[in-house]
Amino acid sequence: MEIVCLDLEGVLIPEIWINFAEKTGIEALKRTTRDEPDYDVLMRYRLDILDKHGLKMADIQGVIDSLGPLEGAHEFVTKLREEFQVVILSDTFYEFAEPMMRQLDWPILFCHRLIVDENDRVADYKLRLTDHKRKAVEAFKKLNFFTIAAGDSYNDTTMLGEADCGILFSAPDNVIAEFPQFKTAFEYDELMAHIKEASPRF
Amino acid sequence: MEIVCLDLEGVLIPEIWINFAEKTGIEALKRTTRDEPDYDVLMRYRLDILDKHGLKMADIQGVIDSLGPLEGAHEFVTKLREEFQVVILSDTFYEFAEPMMRQLDWPILFCHRLIVDENDRVADYKLRLTDHKRKAVEAFKKLNFFTIAAGDSYNDTTMLGEADCGILFSAPDNVIAEFPQFKTAFEYDELMAHIKEASPRF
Repeated sequence: MEIVCLDLEGVLIPEIWINFAEKTGIEALKRTTRDEPDYDVLMRYRLDILDKHGLKMADIQGVIDSLGPLEGAHEFVTKLREEFQVVILSDTFYEFAEPMMRQLDWPILFCHRLIVDENDRVADYKLRLTDHKRKAVEAFKKLNFFTIAAGDSYNDTTMLGEADCGILFSAPDNVIAEFPQFKTAFEYDELMAHIKEASPRF
Repeated sequence: MEIVCLDLEGVLIPEIWINFAEKTGIEALKRTTRDEPDYDVLMRYRLDILDKHGLKMADIQGVIDSLGPLEGAHEFVTKLREEFQVVILSDTFYEFAEPMMRQLDWPILFCHRLIVDENDRVADYKLRLTDHKRKAVEAFKKLNFFTIAAGDSYNDTTMLGEADCGILFSAPDNVIAEFPQFKTAFEYDELMAHIKEASPRF
């Protein structure tokens, strides 16, 4: 019995912070886990910048509302959920992801929470758990699931390594070069084919 | 961060075996985990009866196709998924549950698999894991989720006991009497109210 674990940003939806940076013109917010693998360092840096620019939760959510899932992502995840159990594992926050989850018909999401103060300022963030993607895959394996995981960046590689089958989806060249043990896919059809190929049922 | 674990039969959909027994007129198939807590004993008994009557997978799926979720279940689970991460934990089989999952918009389901032979005979079943509902709740707790669980019968009580908050939904009197430590609900509104009351976020 299989469970498919998917990263969110870069796999099903655009990178939230990069798009926010583009809409607001704040270049510094384009930094992602691809550039800075230490997630806490990256988040403190982001919250500082939001504060300096006086940007509130409503501003961020406005941008996210206007973004849609990646082209083909809704169809892909819909088809996938008809044949597999699917969990989204992401280092985003429930507050950011909500409009996207609605557009994807509410697949289950394991991520983190933001702490928003009474002035709608993003005051802090609460990680549910560090390295939670890998730990979730580990937990599913202990529950006797055959685990298939797909992600696009450095912070997905521990999850991919833990899974029975790890797939890099639309990953940058440097990540692909550094982790030659993972399969690679750049289109949803290709990703679906890899998932079915890995599954003992197909 | 919360995760809500729901039993399936008796909570969101009718008891599959009871309805199958009614449609086929085979009284003996009305036995459930409420009557026989040893699941393996119950399943061997059921498969034997199917065999004796020459009933195939297609017959069973035909009945399940014609059943809908319980009245109000779709609305309840849809609302719940907008506010909480929701997992269905069930001792049914993916093959049986599929038409119901489709009608409920594909919430994630942890259950078991049937082994169907080339003549469409249900030859055997494969439990993914024994006591898997409790073990799933335990795993979610280790992933730092606050766990809220609801079920209707004996085989849910280890899950309810493991959860941070356990709720008996439409449970029979004897189960309620034996497990006074759990909250009880008989309507979806009441169940939703208990879930929100238990959640640190509400």
